[in-house]
Amino acid sequence: MTNVTDQDRVLIFDTTLRDGEQSPGATMTHEEKLEIAELLDDMGVDIIEAGFPIASEGDFKAVSEIAQRSKNSRICGLARANFADIDRCWEAIKHAEKSRIHTFIGTSPLHRAIPNLTQDEMAEKIHETVSHARNLCENVQWSPMDATRTEWDYLCRVIEIAIKAGATTINIPDTVGYTAPLESADLIKRLIETVPGADEVVFATHCHNDLGMATANSLAAVIGGARQIECTINGLGERAGNTALEEVVMAMRTRNDIMPYHTGIDTTKIMHISRRVATVSGFNVQFNKAIVGKNAFAHESGIHQDGMLKNRDNFEIMRPEDVGLSGTSLPLGKHSGRAALRDKLETLGYEIGDNQLKDIFVRFKDLADRKKEVFDDDLIALMTLDDADDHLQLVSMKVTCGTGGQAESTVELEVDGQDTIATEYGDGPVDATFKAIRAIYPNKAHLQLYQVHAVTAGTDAQATVSVRLEEDGMIATGQSANTDTVVASAKAYIHALNRLIVRREKTGPGADAREISYKDLT
Amino acid sequence: MTNVTDQDRVLIFDTTLRDGEQSPGATMTHEEKLEIAELLDDMGVDIIEAGFPIASEGDFKAVSEIAQRSKNSRICGLARANFADIDRCWEAIKHAEKSRIHTFIGTSPLHRAIPNLTQDEMAEKIHETVSHARNLCENVQWSPMDATRTEWDYLCRVIEIAIKAGATTINIPDTVGYTAPLESADLIKRLIETVPGADEVVFATHCHNDLGMATANSLAAVIGGARQIECTINGLGERAGNTALEEVVMAMRTRNDIMPYHTGIDTTKIMHISRRVATVSGFNVQFNKAIVGKNAFAHESGIHQDGMLKNRDNFEIMRPEDVGLSGTSLPLGKHSGRAALRDKLETLGYEIGDNQLKDIFVRFKDLADRKKEVFDDDLIALMTLDDADDHLQLVSMKVTCGTGGQAESTVELEVDGQDTIATEYGDGPVDATFKAIRAIYPNKAHLQLYQVHAVTAGTDAQATVSVRLEEDGMIATGQSANTDTVVASAKAYIHALNRLIVRREKTGPGADAREISYKDLT
Repeated sequence: MTNVTDQDRVLIFDTTLRDGEQSPGATMTHEEKLEIAELLDDMGVDIIEAGFPIASEGDFKAVSEIAQRSKNSRICGLARANFADIDRCWEAIKHAEKSRIHTFIGTSPLHRAIPNLTQDEMAEKIHETVSHARNLCENVQWSPMDATRTEWDYLCRVIEIAIKAGATTINIPDTVGYTAPLESADLIKRLIETVPGADEVVFATHCHNDLGMATANSLAAVIGGARQIECTINGLGERAGNTALEEVVMAMRTRNDIMPYHTGIDTTKIMHISRRVATVSGFNVQFNKAIVGKNAFAHESGIHQDGMLKNRDNFEIMRPEDVGLSGTSLPLGKHSGRAALRDKLETLGYEIGDNQLKDIFVRFKDLADRKKEVFDDDLIALMTLDDADDHLQLVSMKVTCGTGGQAESTVELEVDGQDTIATEYGDGPVDATFKAIRAIYPNKAHLQLYQVHAVTAGTDAQATVSVRLEEDGMIATGQSANTDTVVASAKAYIHALNRLIVRREKTGPGADAREISYKDLT
Repeated sequence: MTNVTDQDRVLIFDTTLRDGEQSPGATMTHEEKLEIAELLDDMGVDIIEAGFPIASEGDFKAVSEIAQRSKNSRICGLARANFADIDRCWEAIKHAEKSRIHTFIGTSPLHRAIPNLTQDEMAEKIHETVSHARNLCENVQWSPMDATRTEWDYLCRVIEIAIKAGATTINIPDTVGYTAPLESADLIKRLIETVPGADEVVFATHCHNDLGMATANSLAAVIGGARQIECTINGLGERAGNTALEEVVMAMRTRNDIMPYHTGIDTTKIMHISRRVATVSGFNVQFNKAIVGKNAFAHESGIHQDGMLKNRDNFEIMRPEDVGLSGTSLPLGKHSGRAALRDKLETLGYEIGDNQLKDIFVRFKDLADRKKEVFDDDLIALMTLDDADDHLQLVSMKVTCGTGGQAESTVELEVDGQDTIATEYGDGPVDATFKAIRAIYPNKAHLQLYQVHAVTAGTDAQATVSVRLEEDGMIATGQSANTDTVVASAKAYIHALNRLIVRREKTGPGADAREISYKDLT
C-alpha cells in the first residue's frame, strides 16, 4: 500500500465465533472453532472475538485454546457488566500474545428497564466494570448495546465514563439492524466531535442486516470516523446476520477512490474461509450472495459474445482471483498422483502434512474410481473429514425403497467397538435408515435440519448431506459426502450423533451449555 | 397513508421476470411467469418488467399474455436501441391496460466502443429510438446502461436528448454494482438539478448487489430525488443479484422517520411471493437473508428469557405478520377437514377454487396418513404442483442401495401413454434412477443442479427435490416433494424433462431461446 496514512487503516474485528456462532442452528464444535480461528488469523483479521467465556465450559475452553494458539490476531472475549464475567473472560484470554476484554451493557431505555437501573446507577456500574477490566487487561472494548436507540445525552455521558475508566475501543452496536447510512455516519461523527477523550480511543461499528444495509452502514460509520468494523464471515449471525466481512473488505478495496481506507486482510483467502464457515455452521450461502455466492462472478454465457469477452472491464469490477477463486481449473482423475493432489489442495487453501495427504489420497482414489472427473468442489467436500466418529461407526447398510409401500433399511453399526444390526421400515429410505440407527442406539435427538447438495454437476456427483440434531437444548450438526445420498445421510446422522455424545460428556450433568443466554446481545 | 404528498410516493418497478429470470439457472416456464406476474400485480407493484420480447418467441408470448392479464400494474417490455426491438416490444405490450416501452443503450466509454459509435452518433441513435418508442407508447423509459461509469457531461447530454424525444422515465442503472450510497444520491441529485426538463420526468434507480450495497444505494437514490426503484423478489438476478424488493420496501416502512416515502406494496404478501420465486427459480434464500430468510425473525431461544419476552420491542423492529409470516400456527392432521385446509391455504396466500381444493385435499390426506403433523411448510410444498407432466409419468419404481456395491434401480415410466420398464445400476440410488429414466427416454440433458431440502423438521418430513437440466442452452428446473427422497428425485427429474420437452416444442428448430443475449445489460 502506498499513499496511505495510519489514519486510513480500518481494523477488522471478526465475531463469527461469538455473534455468528450464536445464530439458531449455527453451533460449531471445539475443533471447528479452532480451525476457523486459525483461518481468521491467517487471513489477517486484527481482532478475533472468540466467544463468551462465562457462558459455558465449552466456550471458555474454546476461547482459551484460541488465545494460546493465536499468531498475529488479538484475541477477544465477551463479558457482561459484572466482575464474574470479566474475571472469567480474562482467565480465558490472558495467555494470548495480544488480548482484549469486550464488556457491554444495554443503555437504551428499553434495556435499562430490564435490570431496572436508573441512569446514574447504570453509569456507576459502567465505571466500575470498565475500570476492573482495564486493571486486568491493557486493551478493553466497551459497547453500549442498542446505542442507536439510546438518548443522545446519555449515550455521550456513558461513553465518556467508559473512556475515563480505561476503555481503548468504543463500539457502537446497531443491535436490531435499525440504522441507515447517513444516520450511521452522523452518529459516529457527532460522538467523536462531542465526547471528551474520543480522540484517544478507536470507535467501532457493529451492524446487523435486518433491513439489508449492514455493509453500507458499516462503511458509512468508517466515513464518519470509525476505524474498526465488526463483522462475520458470510454475514453469519442471528436473524438476518451481521455485517459480512467479505463485503466491507472488498467494497473498500474496489471503491478505494471514494473510500480511501485499507485493511490487513489477504482477500485471496476469502473463498476458502467462506466455504469452511458455510460447512461447519450448516448455513449455506445463497447463489446470489455478494462476493462469495456461487453466482457472484458468474455471467450468463450469452453476454460473453456481446461485451464480456471483448472487454473484461465492461462487467467485472473485481477479479475472481482477488477473492481466491481459481479460474478455470482442470479436474483431477484416477490417474492423478499425490503431487497433483497436494498442489491442487494448496491452491484451494488447504495446507496438509504428509500423513494427512496419505489418508486423503486413499479417499481421493476411491472417489476417482467412481467419478470420472474430480472437480475442486469434490475435493473441498472430501476435505470435510469426519472428526468425531468414535462412538458410533457405520459398518454396512442396505436399503430398499420405491413406490410400492414403505422403505426398508438394514444398518450395521459399531457402537463402542461392538457390532449390532437392525432393520426398520419408514416413509422413505432416509426415515427408515434413521429409525434403524435409533433402534441400535436409542436417543431422543430431534432432527431439525436435513439438507442435500450435489457437490458438482452430473448424476455421478457426490452429495453432501447436512444433518442438525437437537437434544435437551444442545445442537450438533453432522456432514458427510458420498455418491450415494442414502449412505451420506446415514453417515451425516451418525456424525451428528457422535458430536452430541461428545458434547454431552464435555458438558456433564447440570452444566447446560445454553444456561447463559447472550444471543444477540451486541 | 396520511400526511404524505404525491412527492413522497416511490414507484416499485419489479424486474424479477426480466433481469431476475436471466440469472444463470433461474429460467422460469411460461406458466410460472404468469403466476409470478399475477402475484406481483396483486401485491401492488407499480410496473412489472415482464421480459424482453424480441429475445425469443417464449419471451414475446410471456410478455404478451402478462400484458393482457394485467389488472393494476403497468406492464413493461425491454428493447435495445433499434426499431425492430421497439416494434416487437410494443407488439407484446400494447394490449395491457397500462403499458411501457423500456429502451436502453450503453453510454459509458467501454460500451460505446462495442458498436463503435462516436458520442454524436450515439446521441442521434438515442433521439431516433426514443422518439420512435414514444410514437408507439405514451409511457417510455430510457436507460443509459453503465451510467455510473459514463462521463458526466455526456450523461447529461444524452438524458436531455431522451427527455426531449419523449421519455417519461429516466432510469440510472448501476450495471456492475459499483456505486455507494453517497455517490448514488449525489448522482441523481445533480442530474435533476442539471438536466433541462428533468423535473418533467421520473428518475429511477437500478442497482446491483456486487458490493452488498444495492438496498442502501437504491434508498440513497430516492433521498437524492429518484421516485422509482427497480428491484426483484429475493434480490434475484445475475451475479450477486438486483436490489431486493422486500428490503427497500420494508426499510422505507420501518424507518419512515428518516425516509418519509411510501409505496403501494401490500407487505403482507412478501413471504408468499418470496417462497414462490425461490421455488420456481431454484434459487434458495439463505437462512440469514434480510426480511425473507428462515432466520430473519428467529431469535435464539435463550434470549427470550432475558429481553425478548419482557418487551418485544427490545429486539423486533418489524413484526413477522407485516411480511405475511403467520405467527405460531397449529399444524393440520389426518382429522382436519376441507374447510380447515382451505382456511390454512388462504392464510398462506393461496386462493383456490373448489375443484382445485378437491385435488389438493386428496394429496393432503395422503400426506397426513404418512405424517402425524402437517405444517405450513408441508402445505406450501404440496402446492408445488407438477404442471407439465404430460409426456413422461412415473408409474412405479424400486431401488436398492447401500454400502455393498452399486445401487440398483428399476423404473417404470409411461411415455406418451406407453409403459416401459428399465433397470440400471449406478453410484447411489439417484444416479441409478436417473440412468434408468434415461434408458427409457434417451436424452442428452445435463444435470446442472440437484438439491434436497427437508420441508419441516423430523425424519418423517417431506423432502423437496430440485433438479436443473440443461440441453443445448435450454434450461429447465423440476421440483417434487415426497417423504421418500429417491421417489421425489425421480419425479423432480421427470418434471424437469417434461418441461424441457415442452420448451423444445415451443421453440422449434432454429429458434433458439438464447439466441439474443441481453443478460445483465441493464
